[in-house]
Amino acid sequence: MTYCLAIRVDEGVVFAADTRTNAGVDYVTSYRKMHVFRPADDRVFVLLAAGNLATTRELIDEIGRDLDRAPNGESLLSVDYLFEAAQYVGGLSRQIQERHGPAFVRSNVMGEVTLILGGQIRGRAPDIFLIYPQGNYIGVSDETPYLQIGETKYGKPILDRLVHHSLALGDAAKLALVSLDATIRSNITVGLPFDFATYATDTFALSSQVRIGAETAYYQRLRETWQKSFVEIFGRLEDFPQSSVDATGPGAAATDPSANFATGPDRG
Amino acid sequence: MTYCLAIRVDEGVVFAADTRTNAGVDYVTSYRKMHVFRPADDRVFVLLAAGNLATTRELIDEIGRDLDRAPNGESLLSVDYLFEAAQYVGGLSRQIQERHGPAFVRSNVMGEVTLILGGQIRGRAPDIFLIYPQGNYIGVSDETPYLQIGETKYGKPILDRLVHHSLALGDAAKLALVSLDATIRSNITVGLPFDFATYATDTFALSSQVRIGAETAYYQRLRETWQKSFVEIFGRLEDFPQSSVDATGPGAAATDPSANFATGPDRG
Repeated sequence: MTYCLAIRVDEGVVFAADTRTNAGVDYVTSYRKMHVFRPADDRVFVLLAAGNLATTRELIDEIGRDLDRAPNGESLLSVDYLFEAAQYVGGLSRQIQERHGPAFVRSNVMGEVTLILGGQIRGRAPDIFLIYPQGNYIGVSDETPYLQIGETKYGKPILDRLVHHSLALGDAAKLALVSLDATIRSNITVGLPFDFATYATDTFALSSQVRIGAETAYYQRLRETWQKSFVEIFGRLEDFPQSSVDATGPGAAATDPSANFATGPDRG
Repeated sequence: MTYCLAIRVDEGVVFAADTRTNAGVDYVTSYRKMHVFRPADDRVFVLLAAGNLATTRELIDEIGRDLDRAPNGESLLSVDYLFEAAQYVGGLSRQIQERHGPAFVRSNVMGEVTLILGGQIRGRAPDIFLIYPQGNYIGVSDETPYLQIGETKYGKPILDRLVHHSLALGDAAKLALVSLDATIRSNITVGLPFDFATYATDTFALSSQVRIGAETAYYQRLRETWQKSFVEIFGRLEDFPQSSVDATGPGAAATDPSANFATGPDRG
C-alpha cells in the first residue's frame, strides 16, 4: 500500500509520499513514489503514484522517452496547460494498463495506478490533479485544497482539522508530515522514509526536496513534541459525563429492539 | 456504514456506537446499534453491530426469544463464560445469514454483520470480543485493549496515541468520543447521535448510558476545546526544514527511475 498527499496553498504546492511497497507481506521493499520532472525552465511537474509498481515504472519510463523525442509528439514539453499534462499522463497510464489488460485478468492481478500530478507551467497558476486509473482526473478547490491517494483514511482527520489554503508553504509541509506520521502509526503497509517536495508559486524549480526517515533528528523531535502535546490536550478536556446528558434532537428518534430486555440505568 | 468501538481498561469497559444507517445515499436513517442485555443480577452484556440491519434485527429478536424460553435451551442466561456468550451470539448470527444465504446471493445483498460483545458474568473478569460474520471471535490484550468495527480507520490514530489499559473509565469514554468525533468529521456515513455505555468491573449494571448529539452542550464544548487545542499544538511544532535534512538509513535505498529528468535542488 501507499500514502501520497498533495496540498495546494496560496504560496504554492506541497507533495508528500511514503516509500513502502509490498507484494504480499513477505516481499516488502522501499521505492520512491515521488517523481520530479523539470524538462524546461518554464515548467515543473511532480508525480506521485499509488498502485501497481510495474505500471508506474512503465509510465515513468514512457514519460522520459517522450521527453527525449520532443519536440516530436506529445510530452510534458508539448503541453500548454497543467490539465493537458494530466490528460497526457492519464492517457499513457490507461494505455499501459490496456496493453497488459488480458494478462492481468488471466493472473488476477490489479494493474491499476492512481496518480497525483502537480506543478506549474509559466503563465498559468500552480495546480494539482488526481488522475484515476481510467485516465480521467479531478482537481482541488480552496475549500478542499488537498488530494490523497492510497491508504488515505488514517491521515485525513488531522488534515480536515488543520488544512487551509492560506497556510504557509512550510506549515503545509509540516501538516503533510503529521498526516503521514498518523498513518504509519496505525498501518504497517505505509512506511518510512518519506519524500517531501515543496514548490513556491512562479519559481519553476522545487523550493525544497527532503527525505525524512526514522533517524531524522527533526522528525524525532516533531514526533515527540506532537505525542506529548496530544497527551496534554486530552488531559484538558472536560470529564465525560457519568450520567445521562441532555438528549438529542430529531435524529435521535431511533427504534430500539432491545429495549424490552435492557435494564441498564440512565437510558439516554 | 457504522463505527463502533469498545475499550477494556482496568476499571471496566467502555462501549460507543454511532447511529447512522443507510441503504444508498437517498435512504439515510438513524438506528440504535448498541443493545444492552441484563437478564439476571449476575451478568450484563452489551452488543454493538455493524453490517446488515435486517440480520442485526433478527439476531436481537432471537437473543430476546431465547431469554424468554430460559432456562430451556441456550441463551445469555445459560452461558457460564463470556466467550460462550460470544460463541452463542456468533452461532445465531451465522445461522441467520445462512438461512437467507441463497436469497442474498440472488439479490447480490451483503447480509453479513460484524459484532462486538462485551460485559461480565459474576466470577469472571469483564471482557470484550469481536465476532466475525462467520461466528468466530477474537479478544483484546493489555497491549491492544480496544476493538473497532465498521468505518475504523479515521478514528484509529488518536486511539493508538492515547489508549492504555490503565486509563480511568471516564477517560476511556472521553477517548472513545474523540475517536468517533474524528470519524464523523471525515466520513458522512458515520453520524450523530452517539451512544455511550460505561461498565465498572463487578457492578453487573451499566455505570452510565448516555446519548450524545450535535446539540449536547458537553459535546459542543469538547469539540471546540479539542479543535482549538489542535491549532495550538500544531503551532508549537518546529518549522519544516526548507532544505535537505540528514538522509535516511538502510530503508532509504530506493531506486529512482526519474532521476535522469529530475533537476530539483536538494535532492535528499
